[in-house]
Amino acid sequence: MGTLSVFLDVPLVKRTDIPQDFYKEDPHPQKVLLGHAGCQTDAGEAWIPPVVQRILLQISQDPTLDHEYLPQLGIYEYTRAATELAIGKESHALLENRAGGVHTVGGTGALWLGAEFLCRWYKPRFATPTALYIAKTQWDSIGSIFHVAGFTDIRPYDYWNPVKLTIDIEEFLQTLQKAPTGSIVFLHAPEEIGLKPQEWETVAATMEKKQLFPFFNIESQGLASGNLDRDAWALRHFVGQGFELLCAQSFSKTFGLYDELVGNLIVVTKNNETLIRIHSQMERQMSTMWGWPGSLGARVIAMVLNSPALLYEWKLSLRMVVERIMLIREKLKEQLRILGTPGSWEHLTAQSGMCSFIGLSSSQVEFLVKYKHIYLFENKQINICSINSKNLDYVARSIHEAVLATTLEDWN
Amino acid sequence: MGTLSVFLDVPLVKRTDIPQDFYKEDPHPQKVLLGHAGCQTDAGEAWIPPVVQRILLQISQDPTLDHEYLPQLGIYEYTRAATELAIGKESHALLENRAGGVHTVGGTGALWLGAEFLCRWYKPRFATPTALYIAKTQWDSIGSIFHVAGFTDIRPYDYWNPVKLTIDIEEFLQTLQKAPTGSIVFLHAPEEIGLKPQEWETVAATMEKKQLFPFFNIESQGLASGNLDRDAWALRHFVGQGFELLCAQSFSKTFGLYDELVGNLIVVTKNNETLIRIHSQMERQMSTMWGWPGSLGARVIAMVLNSPALLYEWKLSLRMVVERIMLIREKLKEQLRILGTPGSWEHLTAQSGMCSFIGLSSSQVEFLVKYKHIYLFENKQINICSINSKNLDYVARSIHEAVLATTLEDWN
Repeated sequence: MGTLSVFLDVPLVKRTDIPQDFYKEDPHPQKVLLGHAGCQTDAGEAWIPPVVQRILLQISQDPTLDHEYLPQLGIYEYTRAATELAIGKESHALLENRAGGVHTVGGTGALWLGAEFLCRWYKPRFATPTALYIAKTQWDSIGSIFHVAGFTDIRPYDYWNPVKLTIDIEEFLQTLQKAPTGSIVFLHAPEEIGLKPQEWETVAATMEKKQLFPFFNIESQGLASGNLDRDAWALRHFVGQGFELLCAQSFSKTFGLYDELVGNLIVVTKNNETLIRIHSQMERQMSTMWGWPGSLGARVIAMVLNSPALLYEWKLSLRMVVERIMLIREKLKEQLRILGTPGSWEHLTAQSGMCSFIGLSSSQVEFLVKYKHIYLFENKQINICSINSKNLDYVARSIHEAVLATTLEDWN
Repeated sequence: MGTLSVFLDVPLVKRTDIPQDFYKEDPHPQKVLLGHAGCQTDAGEAWIPPVVQRILLQISQDPTLDHEYLPQLGIYEYTRAATELAIGKESHALLENRAGGVHTVGGTGALWLGAEFLCRWYKPRFATPTALYIAKTQWDSIGSIFHVAGFTDIRPYDYWNPVKLTIDIEEFLQTLQKAPTGSIVFLHAPEEIGLKPQEWETVAATMEKKQLFPFFNIESQGLASGNLDRDAWALRHFVGQGFELLCAQSFSKTFGLYDELVGNLIVVTKNNETLIRIHSQMERQMSTMWGWPGSLGARVIAMVLNSPALLYEWKLSLRMVVERIMLIREKLKEQLRILGTPGSWEHLTAQSGMCSFIGLSSSQVEFLVKYKHIYLFENKQINICSINSKNLDYVARSIHEAVLATTLEDWN
């Protein structure tokens, strides 16, 4: 054989430096990672609802369950229950058989399937290529999925004012108003970003006027407010207004099953016949990408969602996590108040859910990394769950010092 | 909202009529499906090695294992052991760090990842578009994966003479000799298709001369001859000859874990630096498609492959299945001999493994479906494991009648 590789031209993909990597390599004993992907307990361990642990054990001992291939669209009891959880059991779209879920390989699989499908089939009857709007916070992580799927016109939007440290609904609405008719708007974590129902109503009205297509992504239903229905308010409003939409749904965080890759892609359309056509296309797409979805995680979730008793127990677990998150938010704000840290820290408790804008400048974040060994997400958000009783004081003092140091710097 | 869907133009994908569907809908009490995807026991149930059952239980009770995300390339202990199993622990390619596996979402995920990667990066420094050769038997199932990944010049090859009912190595070699230099040749189930080592040597020499790129697909290592090393002979020969290649590996059949989606994509290239570049590209591809691989199945397989005692037990299980398959082949041939069925049925025992050419004409297959409620794979192969002591007589008699009926037809 020749000695030259046929892959001579394959370039190395340089790994973007992610905080998790820096954190891992940092030998400092007090290092803190505020950029955990998942939900942590106060002991700094991965959180998993007790009911899930129990059912995992039960499934492994159940002789009636086999390990055969699932149907291509997945476990119906799972996709049906997951879809009901998101858009509501009483949703007209469900009753009219024009909404349905597709069991995907994780939340990422749902995003990929949706992105590929839209790239192939979304015909807004307007200008092409279709513009796609993504929140600045998701620019890197989710933007790349749409880019690889074939979207060429990807644009950022913002809903957060980093100076006032509040939701900037005007900025968001202006972007929507200026968007080309028929654009796609990716709405990440509607349960967490903090828009009020009236604000969502205005967003929906603006999007309806401009015939914008919503693609939701729900990863933490129940972990933002502690109430499953309240966290689904925005999605349900859009469905109620008669939008056609996609919604990627992930259960990794809410069930603590990150390694089980259980996702659901909800399609809401105008009628049952269109839904069947769309599902048939998605089925073909999936058959070439991964064949079938996996079963274990979906079995656990289906069991919990379809049993009133288990559902009740899971809801309680979610509420306990949310209470812990709210308490940490309060405690951190209180600590900063006691330390006399300059600035208002109201935004800490005004937001809800796991992910939060911490409200620090780039140089303050840099200070935390460089001198305090504290690592945030790339988009300067933090995962509130990563703060616990062991590191709370250290985190608060470090933020205090970062603010003082960089304020002094600004004065010099 | 308007009432017109933006998805008006999405066409319905008509499901190809697959034997499994006809079988399910057939109410006949004696119906037989000879087109099972997986391995069946004599009781007609899905086969799973006892050691796998035990480890599944053990893992579910292990408090030290969490459900956090895996690294993007997967569990190293799994991909390493899987790659060693395929190309051999002592392989120079492994010792020189120029071979390595990527943990994929099932065997289909490995095929998809490989197909997409080759479509993007295979630069044979010859004519484009690259021609891709696929065995006729895999035309529908695997051809569609390469088609969706972007290959436009897909061509069939044949290695089986349906008249003589033997391997037709001349036909296969001729196709390879006529192939454009630098084409890709997809080699499905090298362990099962029945080429002898000398024949593989000739295939490799021909491919080397024409600089053809091999993409292997191994789904049943250990289930063809009962010997893991013997079943990997062809792949190891190509690696030994210094080929760069891909090999998709699936453990669904050999571990009975169809619902766990555990695949591995082996890359063998010229040097470690090229391997790193290729893996970095694959890592990016995977991050947009499914994020991370799942853990449970890979944990089971890693535990078995890395423990001499468990490995021994698993090998014994495989050998028992192979013995059962060989016995069924013998019994079916014997039954047809006793019935005096016209024709030679030597090909039944000359082949090995689960999948087999049954050697019937289209009208004979049609007869089996229409009058005998017996369903084969679309490519007229059968899964030998689907024959058991309950249906063996019925299957043999039906084949006998099919042959007689259609021979009479030919006379009229």
